[in-house]
Amino acid sequence: MPSNRQILLDNRPQGEASAANFKLVATETPPLADGQVLVRHHYLSLDPYMRGRMNDSKSYAASQPLGEVMIGGTVGEVAESRHPDYAPGDAVVGMGGWQEYSVVDAGQPGVLRKVDTRRVPLSAYLGAVGMPGVTAYYGLVRIIDPKPGQTVTVTAASGAVGSAYAALAKARGCRVVGIAGGPEKCRYAEQELGFDVCIDYKAHDGDVRSLAKALKDACPDGIDGHFENVGGWILDAVMLRANAFSRIAVCGLIAGYDGQPLPMANPALILINRMRIEGFIVSEHMDVWPPALKELGELVATGKLRPRESVAEGIEAAPQAFLGMLKGRNFGKQLVKLI
Amino acid sequence: MPSNRQILLDNRPQGEASAANFKLVATETPPLADGQVLVRHHYLSLDPYMRGRMNDSKSYAASQPLGEVMIGGTVGEVAESRHPDYAPGDAVVGMGGWQEYSVVDAGQPGVLRKVDTRRVPLSAYLGAVGMPGVTAYYGLVRIIDPKPGQTVTVTAASGAVGSAYAALAKARGCRVVGIAGGPEKCRYAEQELGFDVCIDYKAHDGDVRSLAKALKDACPDGIDGHFENVGGWILDAVMLRANAFSRIAVCGLIAGYDGQPLPMANPALILINRMRIEGFIVSEHMDVWPPALKELGELVATGKLRPRESVAEGIEAAPQAFLGMLKGRNFGKQLVKLI
Repeated sequence: MPSNRQILLDNRPQGEASAANFKLVATETPPLADGQVLVRHHYLSLDPYMRGRMNDSKSYAASQPLGEVMIGGTVGEVAESRHPDYAPGDAVVGMGGWQEYSVVDAGQPGVLRKVDTRRVPLSAYLGAVGMPGVTAYYGLVRIIDPKPGQTVTVTAASGAVGSAYAALAKARGCRVVGIAGGPEKCRYAEQELGFDVCIDYKAHDGDVRSLAKALKDACPDGIDGHFENVGGWILDAVMLRANAFSRIAVCGLIAGYDGQPLPMANPALILINRMRIEGFIVSEHMDVWPPALKELGELVATGKLRPRESVAEGIEAAPQAFLGMLKGRNFGKQLVKLI
Repeated sequence: MPSNRQILLDNRPQGEASAANFKLVATETPPLADGQVLVRHHYLSLDPYMRGRMNDSKSYAASQPLGEVMIGGTVGEVAESRHPDYAPGDAVVGMGGWQEYSVVDAGQPGVLRKVDTRRVPLSAYLGAVGMPGVTAYYGLVRIIDPKPGQTVTVTAASGAVGSAYAALAKARGCRVVGIAGGPEKCRYAEQELGFDVCIDYKAHDGDVRSLAKALKDACPDGIDGHFENVGGWILDAVMLRANAFSRIAVCGLIAGYDGQPLPMANPALILINRMRIEGFIVSEHMDVWPPALKELGELVATGKLRPRESVAEGIEAAPQAFLGMLKGRNFGKQLVKLI
């Protein structure tokens, strides 16, 4: 029974989240019951949605209970199995949480999935070929549904969702324009991720008109579809450039998680431009996962989607890596390497 | 050649619209060319969208040119015809504008439509069985698409759109809750229009939480669909009671036409509740008109939809009646009777 280090949610944030909200503990992994599998995690995924779960307030997902292991996606290998479908050494993806090992009732549908690491690296199943990739797919393909030649935009362009979005949009013949923080991320988005243009929002310092002007230059035919990961003044600027019948997929409003008010400046544009704005959470649309994972896996395997990863080392590094990601300090998909 | 009194847009509003923006003139109707029809208007329709057209700024519709007859829907009878499909005495609906007569190129598709006044009164073709009714139909049936038992709401409940919305929603087995200004309108909405409850927003005096509380009482199962005619704090209150996967059809934002900023307080609710918010303008969805007019005509003919009308007398009364409507002083569909 190996020792298992875990990170628990110790208390809820008052405003901004901090390292003091978390607690590192060590336990022993319990002996397996029939049908259970012990998974040794290689990578833990850190994602913005986790911040929402730290609150007690109403949200789309259940609140993370205090004193329990933080929820999170993991990839790893089967260390020990008492389920006939799994053997030691199998590569698996699941929701193991912020810990080094997890015990899984492998018979429950959807809790564990074997993956093929011959053409796609294991860590990609937490990013481009995992939840963030499918999130980009749902927003782009199901909500925005762009026609070839249309212009689509995305915030947090250099992140896990943004990079998959760019590859999926290029595969559909779109012009794709990103918005990211800082010249380095923007250069990377243009040179490595396939964005036609990436705009550095930090150069506009909260000035809606200035960012809207940059969007006009980058999107001479206006914006037909937008994928929102951030909210606030950046969304206000995008709406000023939105075309008639444009669609906005709302996936994240990271700027609002700490509880400050985050109004939309000019909702009259929804009427003036006959827009459709739709919020979604990808885990409620399981039908989209198989076609999305198939296309995303092929894009990664053929090198058309080469997302960058920010990798922190060791479970004890997870809280700081998570807090940094919320402030945009990561560069690409934020992972914690555990082995 | 009868004399024709007309109301022109003389100058654009600076902020609030006023009677000084309009000008009454008299001309003679011109002789008819081949294919033309002279229509004598019985009723002129006054609608909130006209306020948007008075501005020069970008809107969904072309700006009303200065010095020309104000645009508007009309019903009347053919006074003289040089088109084989029309004979004097035919009842017709069209876009004749703010004037007593109009000359129409009757061969152009969609400009003139003969209507049957045996079971539906002529004026109803400007309201319940016209553009406002079809507007209610599009928002309710195409955007909100409610299931039986769901709760749907609407602002400006006692108006032309709201009354049609209530009848259409009841026909679909919904609970329908209105929001209107003043106890008299609310009583009328509940007693005559079929609303299960109508809330007087004036009793809440801009207090979002207070209105949200009233909505909670009126909608114990939450709000599944909402039709927005107003915007601002009332929409903010509705969003606080919106259910997961709820839909909001945005048809009007009357509170914002004068140019003051009108933010949406908490767009994060779009994500938290996975909402869909969609703006529309009914003239862009011509496919919906035939089924909508059929159902609405039947509802009126069978007495299930008995909308009230506010009738001003004489073309010279149109500007004041229009300005009063923008302030909610009308009670039901606002018309001007010309004959």
